[in-house]
Amino acid sequence: MMENGGFCSDYYNGESSDELVDISVVTVDFSEDVPPLDRDYSEGCCKGEWTHNSSPKLMDLLDETVPGIGTYEDFNTIDWVREKSKDRDRHREITNKSKQSMTALLFSINDAFSGWLLMLLIGLMSGALAGGIDIAAHWMTDLKEGVCLNGFWFNHEHCCWASNETTFQERDKCPQWRSWAELMVGVSEGASAYVVNYLMYVCWALFFACLAVTLVRAFAPYACGSGIPEIKTILSGFIIRGYLGKWTLIIKTITLVLAVSSGLSLGKEGPLVHVACCCANILCHFFTKYCRNEAKRREVLSAASAVGVSVAFGAPIGGVLFSLEEVSYYFPLKTLWRSFFAALVAAFTLRSINPFGNSRLVLFYVEFHTPWHLLELIPFVLLGIFGGLWGAFFIRANIAWCRRRKSTCLGHYPVVEVLVVTLVTALLAFPNEYTQMSSSELISELFNDCGLLDSSKLCNYTDNSKNGLGSLNASDGINSLADRVAGPGLYTAIWQLALALVFKALITVVTFGMKVPSGLFIPSMAVGAIAGRLLGVGMEQLAIYHHDWTVFRGWCSPGADCITPGLYAMVGAAACLGGVTRMTVSLVVIMFELTGGLEYIVPLMAAAMTSKWVSDALGRESIYEAHIRLNGYPFLEPKEEFRHQTLATDVMHPRRSDPPLSVLTQSGMTVEEVERLIADTTYSGFPVVISHQSQRLVGFVLRRDLVISLENARRHQEGIVSVSAVLFTECAPPSSPNGPPAVNLYSILDLSPFTVTVHTPMEIVVDIFRKLGLRQCLVTQNGRLLGIITKKDILKHMAQMANRDPDSILFN
Amino acid sequence: MMENGGFCSDYYNGESSDELVDISVVTVDFSEDVPPLDRDYSEGCCKGEWTHNSSPKLMDLLDETVPGIGTYEDFNTIDWVREKSKDRDRHREITNKSKQSMTALLFSINDAFSGWLLMLLIGLMSGALAGGIDIAAHWMTDLKEGVCLNGFWFNHEHCCWASNETTFQERDKCPQWRSWAELMVGVSEGASAYVVNYLMYVCWALFFACLAVTLVRAFAPYACGSGIPEIKTILSGFIIRGYLGKWTLIIKTITLVLAVSSGLSLGKEGPLVHVACCCANILCHFFTKYCRNEAKRREVLSAASAVGVSVAFGAPIGGVLFSLEEVSYYFPLKTLWRSFFAALVAAFTLRSINPFGNSRLVLFYVEFHTPWHLLELIPFVLLGIFGGLWGAFFIRANIAWCRRRKSTCLGHYPVVEVLVVTLVTALLAFPNEYTQMSSSELISELFNDCGLLDSSKLCNYTDNSKNGLGSLNASDGINSLADRVAGPGLYTAIWQLALALVFKALITVVTFGMKVPSGLFIPSMAVGAIAGRLLGVGMEQLAIYHHDWTVFRGWCSPGADCITPGLYAMVGAAACLGGVTRMTVSLVVIMFELTGGLEYIVPLMAAAMTSKWVSDALGRESIYEAHIRLNGYPFLEPKEEFRHQTLATDVMHPRRSDPPLSVLTQSGMTVEEVERLIADTTYSGFPVVISHQSQRLVGFVLRRDLVISLENARRHQEGIVSVSAVLFTECAPPSSPNGPPAVNLYSILDLSPFTVTVHTPMEIVVDIFRKLGLRQCLVTQNGRLLGIITKKDILKHMAQMANRDPDSILFN
Repeated sequence: MMENGGFCSDYYNGESSDELVDISVVTVDFSEDVPPLDRDYSEGCCKGEWTHNSSPKLMDLLDETVPGIGTYEDFNTIDWVREKSKDRDRHREITNKSKQSMTALLFSINDAFSGWLLMLLIGLMSGALAGGIDIAAHWMTDLKEGVCLNGFWFNHEHCCWASNETTFQERDKCPQWRSWAELMVGVSEGASAYVVNYLMYVCWALFFACLAVTLVRAFAPYACGSGIPEIKTILSGFIIRGYLGKWTLIIKTITLVLAVSSGLSLGKEGPLVHVACCCANILCHFFTKYCRNEAKRREVLSAASAVGVSVAFGAPIGGVLFSLEEVSYYFPLKTLWRSFFAALVAAFTLRSINPFGNSRLVLFYVEFHTPWHLLELIPFVLLGIFGGLWGAFFIRANIAWCRRRKSTCLGHYPVVEVLVVTLVTALLAFPNEYTQMSSSELISELFNDCGLLDSSKLCNYTDNSKNGLGSLNASDGINSLADRVAGPGLYTAIWQLALALVFKALITVVTFGMKVPSGLFIPSMAVGAIAGRLLGVGMEQLAIYHHDWTVFRGWCSPGADCITPGLYAMVGAAACLGGVTRMTVSLVVIMFELTGGLEYIVPLMAAAMTSKWVSDALGRESIYEAHIRLNGYPFLEPKEEFRHQTLATDVMHPRRSDPPLSVLTQSGMTVEEVERLIADTTYSGFPVVISHQSQRLVGFVLRRDLVISLENARRHQEGIVSVSAVLFTECAPPSSPNGPPAVNLYSILDLSPFTVTVHTPMEIVVDIFRKLGLRQCLVTQNGRLLGIITKKDILKHMAQMANRDPDSILFN
Repeated sequence: MMENGGFCSDYYNGESSDELVDISVVTVDFSEDVPPLDRDYSEGCCKGEWTHNSSPKLMDLLDETVPGIGTYEDFNTIDWVREKSKDRDRHREITNKSKQSMTALLFSINDAFSGWLLMLLIGLMSGALAGGIDIAAHWMTDLKEGVCLNGFWFNHEHCCWASNETTFQERDKCPQWRSWAELMVGVSEGASAYVVNYLMYVCWALFFACLAVTLVRAFAPYACGSGIPEIKTILSGFIIRGYLGKWTLIIKTITLVLAVSSGLSLGKEGPLVHVACCCANILCHFFTKYCRNEAKRREVLSAASAVGVSVAFGAPIGGVLFSLEEVSYYFPLKTLWRSFFAALVAAFTLRSINPFGNSRLVLFYVEFHTPWHLLELIPFVLLGIFGGLWGAFFIRANIAWCRRRKSTCLGHYPVVEVLVVTLVTALLAFPNEYTQMSSSELISELFNDCGLLDSSKLCNYTDNSKNGLGSLNASDGINSLADRVAGPGLYTAIWQLALALVFKALITVVTFGMKVPSGLFIPSMAVGAIAGRLLGVGMEQLAIYHHDWTVFRGWCSPGADCITPGLYAMVGAAACLGGVTRMTVSLVVIMFELTGGLEYIVPLMAAAMTSKWVSDALGRESIYEAHIRLNGYPFLEPKEEFRHQTLATDVMHPRRSDPPLSVLTQSGMTVEEVERLIADTTYSGFPVVISHQSQRLVGFVLRRDLVISLENARRHQEGIVSVSAVLFTECAPPSSPNGPPAVNLYSILDLSPFTVTVHTPMEIVVDIFRKLGLRQCLVTQNGRLLGIITKKDILKHMAQMANRDPDSILFN
């Protein structure tokens, strides 16, 4: 068996063995600044640049002369490998220069620390914005109830702080704070007051929602939704221009406040991640290192998403883990450390703003005093099952609703949709105390452990010293609450909470995905917290009435405070949030940072694990992934393993019925032929082969680079006509002296395209795409080019394997 | 330009285009269990298995008939890609079978949950072992001082708990506890008592150390050292048989207790990671899923290293981050969640054992009461600089010492070395109170904030109501310690601490790396804590004597408690630990979990950052990486970026002066020729090409698989002689009927070897090796095979680039 190479292959074989000779005499010597390879190769047959993009000089030249090369179009995927090597070149150049002069050294130090400076600025800006949003939302939420006479800019709580006339018991009732009924009809009680307050509540809600949706529609359509699905996609290497721009930031910040204040069943936590990413993206513009490199910029955005969660929940470690687990795609360890720094700065900025007046970062920080018992794991696991079921139901219902919105005329009237949902929400929410308050206040109240001084209905227990069920132990402040038999207030509260549960569970389905900023952390947590509190109160009463039961004996002795309904609420909240988002470690750590006690991690973990298992059994995707798929973004899920038994040959293009792969040849093509190929096809790149017969792969050239270079050559290079030859060779073959000059595009040729063989299992191909962040990969067999696999091909194949419509993948 | 293919290439081209035809008519249909590709191909020219290792049937067959195939030799690197696809095959098979019968379904569920069960067992076992080690070490440390009359198995503290005769002030002095002097010469004070105690202290220390080093030498030489460098290497895919075996576990556990008790300057935290990994490795044997797959086993080991840190510091989150940041190589998100679970289980197991009697997981849990001031960041940064300098010094000195041990005759007498170091340590440590106590007790005392009832010398402040420097505010327990002017006891303590600092800093250099289990978390933290406490006390006295200085005004007002020396000790400990190990996030989180207060993260972070910057400026490697390099392990550091401008062609073999690449041809070689090639070379694998002339790559075959298969064929296949042909083809070419039968080794051929082109920059090659965990990669140019790059080549190249000896890379 032997192969008889023709002229061409002989020619190239000769060249390549020459190369081998040249290379192997290189002695590695770094004492000089000139890279050894450049130096040695310049002695070779031709003086041209021959390394593709690993030479800083070449890149500079390209950057200067042909500005478009190396950039991306909107709605396209970046090439991580190229971006990362661009950054390494830049870094290498700075390091080399830094040895030459003092200025360059200072520049290099500045460059090294610019990442930290950027993180500091992102932390400060996001923290300040989050504080502003909290304060504004708090004030505007209270504005639906009434106004402060001391100054309309005070919210209810601040208004009554300023007043000295109130007792501690009635600290939320002070003369300075007037409800709308008091202001307009002069009475604070009775039917007419109720009607006026109801009406004003609905009007304000409609006004806020209308303003929010109008602003979003008019100025920044990208400001709607939670933003997390899009940020996940952007971080995985997709380009959506303007998604993280200044208009989106301004409009999202304003409309977020409006949407939250309108009383819609949505939260500000998800959108805060988007706001932080916008801040990061805008601040990147001041640092060339980050603004000109898409990969470096994504490192910063990963850190920014940690910042967003850090300010949303006051949980810097949880935020970093959230970014790592849920949002990020490429997360080197350097980013981990910087994210942590930025998250801390943001948390401290927020704390110094102190938006809740409690020196805490969130409204629902809690402290529990009673340890939990091992048997309580059973109700916690039940809550986990509930959370998993609710999560699976929510995702299906919400996706069905969003699909309906996309496919029917409903999608044409976003303003009307928002107004109708707001109207329904406001009308149904006002009569129920627990839906009337904002969701975060509700969660705060549900998480709360009943103290002695609590006047809330949830803490309405009858005095047990009267009915003699237990012995009152008055020696301790906490213990005197022991044997808490439910009073009439608590029964009312339970009914109201049950109604609130149904209401919240249903209205959130239609709310998430509307054209206003809307997060679903808070609504999910509210649903779970209600369910948890109900179960907690039920357990508590069971234990009180039956402390002789075997299960309670030795644990719930009479007079001891054995069950904390607040903890159940917290566990329920974690379960529901886990069911919807499928977060695991980050969820538990965020909740841990809210309580601060290591002992409550186990209940949270039990619930989160159960919830994830149950919801995963009913559908693999989290709400974010479901939305990514709904929108057809090219997102290659890093968590899910590809488990099918297909090979690269099943996925690659061209298929049998297709025309053969469009390739360029290394030489022998004219400008016209290349331009015709570009015009006839829509591929984003073309492999370059030695000849059509041999199909031996030389390299890969991107369509965008090719178009720009040809245009550039036609415009700036003299004598280029349609019949000029296009070459992709290091040394131009001797052309006839009277013919037109050739265009040599060797410099834009990627000489190291990734290749796999036709036999490579797709699971490995998918792994390579994920880990290296490729856009495309060439498929060879025995050294011959046979086809190409792009990211889109992989996503389509995966959709097909999962019995979904492969045409749902919209972008490249 | 055209290429004229000969017979062989025509033959294969024809085949490959047939393949293309066959593949493209496959309609994807998963309703049947038979994989579509197998089905379609069986209609082709030959019935043989042709997919390499993606077919479960094939692998089973191989596993059964030729047992050695797919396993690794000792001191070799695993192929992550192969291991992962083996696991996917296994998983696929189980999933397919689970649809067939109830038993198989139960088996598949059991398989899915076995990971969690394994984690639970690892958590329980490691937690229990850690608890046992803590208790035993505590008891044996006290045994050096004396013995308890109530029962010799009580340690000092437990002995005096049982006694009711002591007051709170003198709780460590009780009649039941007798020092050796009291027992042997009958006096507790005076010169003779001191001499007896001194002697007994030294004798016990020598006895423990001697026992430890003898056990290590006799039964488990791998039990020495901290184990973290080797675990890092193992996790990166290296095989060291027995390193995590049961003998190592038993001996390491026992000798760890002995080494800690002997009073040597070493800690048990690092070795606990090794112990946890041994537990994990042993428990893996009960789960086929993990014991038969090297990649899956490494996932479990990653989780186990989190468990080790979790029990060492009572920091489950910190442990997981430590595993992620410092130890692990391949850390999928599923592992993150499981690690967290295992770490929590271990922490709770340890807590229920309660080895320290304080309901805490560690001896040095702290609570601070005073907030810190922004200006205190200056001393914190100074501590960071100190930590960085000490870390850099320690690494250099320790490596120099270890290299001397390796290269001189010192290495031949490990027992003598340990005894001499122990003798010196014991002789110097006894006279100083702060070195006489165990390092963890020392750290605990240094971290401690002085309360009112503290009788320690460090809290010896003169009563400020007498000297009238400040107004005594007796209304609060804490405030009455304000204006703490140092008393004589504190001055003594400062001198002793300064001496202890010098002693610890020097003795640790020679201790780490001896043939006993030795961690350096605790010694590093001790050095930092001493330095921090000294600085803290200095700052405190400065503030007291000069509260009129501008810097202290408004912050350290007279009578207010403004500086916490314990916090300085903690920051110093973090700085030194950071300087030695270069941990970042995990360090801060571990320290945060010790204090529990978010506000102390900022000082810790400032110190850790400074320390890392300073020590990185003086040497890039952490102590673990330095030891990995010292031992020549093939470890490809995932954190460090490769920044040189070399290409694949500069690194690949063969070089110019070398003989050409040893390749096998697809057909045309005889058994004898192949065996001669195997005998003549030491390469761990051979590329298979179509022919020597064309050098078109077909696949790659591993030496071990080749050897085993040929032996197997010679033994079991009839008629195989030395002139039998060896084929690597799917369809055997028609052989002459009277010739010997051919050996077809197509089944062991890897048809999808990774390839890069000669022009690929090494930075990208390194990235591919790291991210995909390759062992080798083939280098092609224009479709022709030119060379091969192995992991060892890359490591040698990196060593050369860093001006180190490339021959220090010892293993493959």
